[in-house]
Amino acid sequence: MRAARLHGNKDIRVDSIPEPEVGLGEVKLKIGWCGICGSDLHEYLEGPITSPKTPHPTTGEMVPIVMGHEFSGTIVAVGKGVDPNAYPVGKKVVVFVSRKGGGLSEYISVDVKCVHLLPDHISLEIGACIEPLSVAWYAVKRANFKPEDKCLVIGSGPIGLFVVKVLKARGCKWVAVSEPATARRENSLKFGADAAYDPRSVDVVSEIKKQTNGLGVDISFECAGSAPGLDSAIAATKARGTIMNVAMWGSRPNVNMMNIFYGERILTSICCYVGVHPEVIEAVADGRLSGVDQLITSRISLEDVVKDGIEKLITDKDNQIKILVRPGPPNSKI
Amino acid sequence: MRAARLHGNKDIRVDSIPEPEVGLGEVKLKIGWCGICGSDLHEYLEGPITSPKTPHPTTGEMVPIVMGHEFSGTIVAVGKGVDPNAYPVGKKVVVFVSRKGGGLSEYISVDVKCVHLLPDHISLEIGACIEPLSVAWYAVKRANFKPEDKCLVIGSGPIGLFVVKVLKARGCKWVAVSEPATARRENSLKFGADAAYDPRSVDVVSEIKKQTNGLGVDISFECAGSAPGLDSAIAATKARGTIMNVAMWGSRPNVNMMNIFYGERILTSICCYVGVHPEVIEAVADGRLSGVDQLITSRISLEDVVKDGIEKLITDKDNQIKILVRPGPPNSKI
Repeated sequence: MRAARLHGNKDIRVDSIPEPEVGLGEVKLKIGWCGICGSDLHEYLEGPITSPKTPHPTTGEMVPIVMGHEFSGTIVAVGKGVDPNAYPVGKKVVVFVSRKGGGLSEYISVDVKCVHLLPDHISLEIGACIEPLSVAWYAVKRANFKPEDKCLVIGSGPIGLFVVKVLKARGCKWVAVSEPATARRENSLKFGADAAYDPRSVDVVSEIKKQTNGLGVDISFECAGSAPGLDSAIAATKARGTIMNVAMWGSRPNVNMMNIFYGERILTSICCYVGVHPEVIEAVADGRLSGVDQLITSRISLEDVVKDGIEKLITDKDNQIKILVRPGPPNSKI
Repeated sequence: MRAARLHGNKDIRVDSIPEPEVGLGEVKLKIGWCGICGSDLHEYLEGPITSPKTPHPTTGEMVPIVMGHEFSGTIVAVGKGVDPNAYPVGKKVVVFVSRKGGGLSEYISVDVKCVHLLPDHISLEIGACIEPLSVAWYAVKRANFKPEDKCLVIGSGPIGLFVVKVLKARGCKWVAVSEPATARRENSLKFGADAAYDPRSVDVVSEIKKQTNGLGVDISFECAGSAPGLDSAIAATKARGTIMNVAMWGSRPNVNMMNIFYGERILTSICCYVGVHPEVIEAVADGRLSGVDQLITSRISLEDVVKDGIEKLITDKDNQIKILVRPGPPNSKI
């Protein structure tokens, strides 16, 4: 089968590799769509970072390694120990986390415990967005969000936009965005933000204070991973409010600890997500989380994953949100 | 009456000022003892910082301003609107927060709402320690401490020691201290720490991991206000554990955000305290919080507040914990 594998720094190749067997307790999936994540960009540009360069202690995998973790698929085979009535061939699914292989390949076999069934009316495209939506959902959940909370999102790249979308789906009455890139700022308004500020021309903290009776927001989401952004997030949050970090940091920011001190603010983070896939699937299924397809800005084939996927997310980053890759055969209709 | 007033940077004088009247809703106190706080040192060395240089909007006070906020006293007069049976003359009290005046003076009038009665068997000396104990108590409370929690205290200066003392009073089975100064480290063991590490010679994080099955402590208390200390506090705390800041910061530390990210740790702070005086007084009264007098390392008269108080806390800081000042007449028995 064909699979996009990371061989090393800036070296992703579509290789021909053996199709996986379906093992005990596993189901084998034909991949429908696989999204490209910001972490995939880091692996490409600066990596291998998380991809093992020596055999991984549990999986034995090492570079070259199949990329992609935001994927949906269809069950094509059911391994021993798996109830074929509960996981029937032909059923659409998403995967919580795969131990071996990746979503940028034609097939994958995964532990059935990592599989979540998709209701029939949810498409495989939307299915591929369940993973990044789960990150945003988990951030909102871990921040103890309540519908009456006013929120600030720092940075409306893909994850910031997903956070805005999840906040509105969960009943948020007011969420503001701070984002310097015009296209991204406009996107945030399109996806539900009630206000969007350009931090280069607006004093975001003052503006937030004006909108919150001088108190500050209940929760700030740091989705930019920038030191000035974190500063604003802390300063714009009310006393005893929460600053939820969703970003990865390449360097250590100088944190204004006295702004944590005054106001007894809470700075915390999520790392990945735990156990929220069913909630997200349910919210998509019942329509609370709608318009997810608008977050998909490109659909490409596996052969174009670098040129029209990863490179496009770098050169056209302000206009791209989620790029989906279809690992099916080349020239198939996508 | 005599009062130690801050006139400016490194300028504290014992002045003669009018005795306060007792106003509506107030009680007038004869000060018993007043402790010197770390913040008083900052006001002296680097100040005026928090002392107003122009008339304060609510109190009208400005430098020269009476210092001292850790004090106990005896009721000598009861103002209109205060029930003299509930607040009888001669009763020992401590003060939550004073709006005007300070504890480094012979008398003060305070709003009765800020007054907490001391049980008769608690001395005025111990009474003067209720305020800093409340800071430590509040830090432990806001960190959601449970007796089964293992803890780390960074820095065993006065506040770090008070935190150790409060943790043990609240049933903590294991608390470790990281402190480079030998005398302070030994003090922490004397006041109940189960282990005390010198971070100059011991890898504190590795040591903590060894003692916690590789997990890290449930709560770290940052009582040093140092960037390497904060680093250790974060790294030595378990996943989803709490790093409680109790220190004030003169500069911004470079925070390892990825160590907040991985483990979804929670970095927060207290600023002062709210509503814990009654709990602390009760814990002292019933003996849970015992041996507080051992934390008092000097008792001095008002005239000596700079030389034997503030200067001593600077030059002999490793051996001094709490220095109490008796504002009573000079040459009176102290």
